[in-house]
Amino acid sequence: MNGAMPRRARSALMALLLAAAAEPCPAATPAELVAAAPPSAWKAIDPETLIVLTIDGGPPVVLQLAPRFAPVHAANVRALVKAGWFDGAAVMRVQDNYVVQWARPGPRASLPAAVAARPPAEYERSAAGLAFRPLGFRDSYAAETGHAEGWPAAREGGRAWLVHCYGMVGVGRDVAPDTGDGTELYAVIGQAPRHLDRNIALVGRIVSGIERLAAEPRGTGPLGFYRDGERGLVIRSARLASDMPAGTQPRFEIMDEASPAFAAWVRARANRKDEFFIRPAGAVDICNALPPIRQGPP
Amino acid sequence: MNGAMPRRARSALMALLLAAAAEPCPAATPAELVAAAPPSAWKAIDPETLIVLTIDGGPPVVLQLAPRFAPVHAANVRALVKAGWFDGAAVMRVQDNYVVQWARPGPRASLPAAVAARPPAEYERSAAGLAFRPLGFRDSYAAETGHAEGWPAAREGGRAWLVHCYGMVGVGRDVAPDTGDGTELYAVIGQAPRHLDRNIALVGRIVSGIERLAAEPRGTGPLGFYRDGERGLVIRSARLASDMPAGTQPRFEIMDEASPAFAAWVRARANRKDEFFIRPAGAVDICNALPPIRQGPP
Repeated sequence: MNGAMPRRARSALMALLLAAAAEPCPAATPAELVAAAPPSAWKAIDPETLIVLTIDGGPPVVLQLAPRFAPVHAANVRALVKAGWFDGAAVMRVQDNYVVQWARPGPRASLPAAVAARPPAEYERSAAGLAFRPLGFRDSYAAETGHAEGWPAAREGGRAWLVHCYGMVGVGRDVAPDTGDGTELYAVIGQAPRHLDRNIALVGRIVSGIERLAAEPRGTGPLGFYRDGERGLVIRSARLASDMPAGTQPRFEIMDEASPAFAAWVRARANRKDEFFIRPAGAVDICNALPPIRQGPP
Repeated sequence: MNGAMPRRARSALMALLLAAAAEPCPAATPAELVAAAPPSAWKAIDPETLIVLTIDGGPPVVLQLAPRFAPVHAANVRALVKAGWFDGAAVMRVQDNYVVQWARPGPRASLPAAVAARPPAEYERSAAGLAFRPLGFRDSYAAETGHAEGWPAAREGGRAWLVHCYGMVGVGRDVAPDTGDGTELYAVIGQAPRHLDRNIALVGRIVSGIERLAAEPRGTGPLGFYRDGERGLVIRSARLASDMPAGTQPRFEIMDEASPAFAAWVRARANRKDEFFIRPAGAVDICNALPPIRQGPP
């Protein structure tokens, strides 16, 4: 995400500005602040929570699970991955400004033994015991939003939940709340459908490759489902990063929401003061303040 | 946009439900309410404000101008279209979760005589004389949001402005505010970048075909600009609908925000009560309440 809207002639200059990565100062852009954040502001993402989806014609798509919010669903997805369930799965639905959804094609197979067929709803959890850093700005949907242990979240009445921002991954279900076994997953590719919050289990997010999923052709069937003959992107294999040979495992870092650099970045997201901006908003929506994630350590 | 997240087995059932288009009732979905709205709830969109962009491999993309908010910019875009400026223009930037941007390739040509080279900023206007229907829910960025003469808008301190929702079209500019002559346009294809509100002129929206623009491959250069050799979608021609031969002009209708059907639809967007939903949000963001637009009259 970036705030400026340069005309063509400015793109080279803008690239230089971004590359400069100056020391933080009042007029630094959010991207400059991310580039200038010290190593201490970054935390490694646990490879036990990372799933690598290999696809044709591009780098893998990498998904991070959120076991602190949806432990049974996260365990289900892990168990499905370990059993090879998603090897050969395909995108079967792309609804514009909404979601991309994927699953194993063909008739329904028996679930691996380790998978809970009817997991609990896990749409929210107790706010107790969860580190939660309020964003400090109004939200249309919840009393309070903020960052909770690396995730965009909301909090209200002693409960906390993940919010449906761009790139978040949820578990498709039938009408009954306990029917989301993890075999059909979706990622958000449009304006945050926050009305889904607390109505369906979010189980993680795409940390790399969402731009590929979001650019897939929209399905022409109802709700963006592909019709017969429309062929969706195939997931050749899905592997836990921690099960991959050392040296081939992808590594990711997330900016620590408790770091001064993160606080400065949120302030800059809410108050754009670089040369392009005339009137800083003075506020930012939680889905426009998703924690910076990068590949690394180098 | 749709709220449900059916697993595959439910897609046929869901399609049937959508097709049924029952009379409005407390549990009707937003889509059902749109389908059931009476003809009196719909207003024709003035063909003088519609621009038809012909592209390869699909139906045209149709853009509606917003002269009530950005009259000089809208007049500029109209004059550019009439002069054939965008015939052969191409997408030159696709930044994921942000914007798609297009312009005429090659060296900069002289502007047609009718085009203002340095239009006023037009980032906001007086709220006086503008019909504004408050949405009635909190917003992260503005004191008040709502629907203003068919457009998603905000209002504060006697001023009103269009907001950067999915599909809205703005005018690229350089650093100086009066440099957006209309020759480079962008459409929002991700989470609403509301920090751009009042920092750049919004001049309209895509009323048909945003799903094609949003699915274009992301550019790999800085800010999503295409690098040399990355070829963007070409706009074969751009025409004012009102200049096209009668019988070939596209026609669109928008739901009248003053109609009871519109109010019922907003309530349903904020309080999903169909069988899939467990906990209605009780609120909706302005960018999740974009006025329904359809082709027609039939």
